[in-house]
Amino acid sequence: MYQLFIGYQNYSSWSLRPWLLLKHFNIPFAQTVVPVDGKGVNATHRVYSDNGLVPCLHDGDFRVWDTLAICDYLAEQYPQMWPANRQARARARSICAEMHSGFTALRSQLPMNVRLRAKGKENTPEVAADLNRIFVIWRNAREIASHNQVAGDYLFGEFSIADAMYAPVIWRLYCYGVQLPADIQYYVDTMLAHPGMQEWEQAALQEGAYLPHDALIEQFGGARE
Amino acid sequence: MYQLFIGYQNYSSWSLRPWLLLKHFNIPFAQTVVPVDGKGVNATHRVYSDNGLVPCLHDGDFRVWDTLAICDYLAEQYPQMWPANRQARARARSICAEMHSGFTALRSQLPMNVRLRAKGKENTPEVAADLNRIFVIWRNAREIASHNQVAGDYLFGEFSIADAMYAPVIWRLYCYGVQLPADIQYYVDTMLAHPGMQEWEQAALQEGAYLPHDALIEQFGGARE
Ligand SMILES: N[C@@H](CCC(=O)N[C@@H](CS)C(=O)NCC(=O)O)C(=O)O
Ligand SMILES: N[C@@H](CCC(=O)N[C@@H](CS)C(=O)NCC(=O)O)C(=O)O
Repeated sequence: MYQLFIGYQNYSSWSLRPWLLLKHFNIPFAQTVVPVDGKGVNATHRVYSDNGLVPCLHDGDFRVWDTLAICDYLAEQYPQMWPANRQARARARSICAEMHSGFTALRSQLPMNVRLRAKGKENTPEVAADLNRIFVIWRNAREIASHNQVAGDYLFGEFSIADAMYAPVIWRLYCYGVQLPADIQYYVDTMLAHPGMQEWEQAALQEGAYLPHDALIEQFGGARE
Repeated sequence: MYQLFIGYQNYSSWSLRPWLLLKHFNIPFAQTVVPVDGKGVNATHRVYSDNGLVPCLHDGDFRVWDTLAICDYLAEQYPQMWPANRQARARARSICAEMHSGFTALRSQLPMNVRLRAKGKENTPEVAADLNRIFVIWRNAREIASHNQVAGDYLFGEFSIADAMYAPVIWRLYCYGVQLPADIQYYVDTMLAHPGMQEWEQAALQEGAYLPHDALIEQFGGARE
């Protein structure tokens, strides 16, 4: 059985991605939550993950680290994790890679904090630019799905690695109370209704760990539920 | 025919990766060099690359952006671009993704500058840590190749996407005159002898553009050759 090493579920945005993918495709796995402090590569973590980061997938003795590599390793066994159409699949790869290396304003200024319920606050221009780009990306994916006549409300119709890669953005939009255009809100609601997202939220709500940036809850005037 | 949009060859480390991959596998492509200033996402560039960055591959009307996505798009047509062994391929994916999102000290403090010939300078501890991690990665790949009895002096024996992803590191080590252990030097020399790397170097040497960080040549006491 696979073993997935993840960070605290309230905070670890990268961990959510392969976790949700495994859940969506009903792939059995054991999970181990390890204490990460959000400060980046940490030598302590190299004992279970060579890059010093979570997530890391253990397949028996063999380790696969980095979110994108884990997704692709799984997709070799479960090709339905990527869109079936060749151009849709290429587009999914482009936007997953863009997520992997970009959106630094969004990632740093609106850190994932599943327990947070904030009122909605003015975004900085950098965050607004990141969000606008993400909305362009999502709409383009939906257009491709509709052009290819693939049914389903996920980015490329059926749930794919692309939805998993953008899943932490869903929590950011929801928890920071960002006002959204109707079509974007519809996709956010679709993702929030995903059983895997709900299971992750419950785990985060019950989790005992607090990182310093939980102070955001105060700052944003939100309430921990 | 494919059309690859790249930055200045002297500076654009991301552009080198898919360019070298296409060259290695003798895949015909047209190239267009566009002026990038190294300051990151640039709205001007969105006209040919949706993420505002180079490289971007055009396959007719269809655009594939981001280095990793371009490599995977090509690898669907040319599966030999990834190592044949499943675990070697997973490892290649992990280290390519690690390159894609990491090594920020090395990338920012030793920017690629193919024309630079520097004497070798003390590295900061952060750069030294990045380099040590890269050497661990390279040795691990070589062990996998040898364990799988795959011939060849590239990372996983035969040239793969992993070599392309780490190719800019070769120029950094060479141009900044970093002292290297013998086994690492051997791999660097292997890569420097690659016809594609030599063609890229010639193009960089002949290129007319200069970015502000070419002042590094002065700073490091190197000579432009
Ligand atoms: N590029 C990596 C990024 C992973 C990452 O940054 N993980 C964070 C947690 S979300 C981490 O492990 N940080 C170490 C720490 O905070 O101690 C990936 O895609 O998996
Ligand atoms: N994650 C991207 C990074 C690409 C990137 O940062 N490209 C740089 C040049 S090497 C760029 O286009 N910068 C825009 C500019 O400098 O104007 C990829 O893997 O392709």
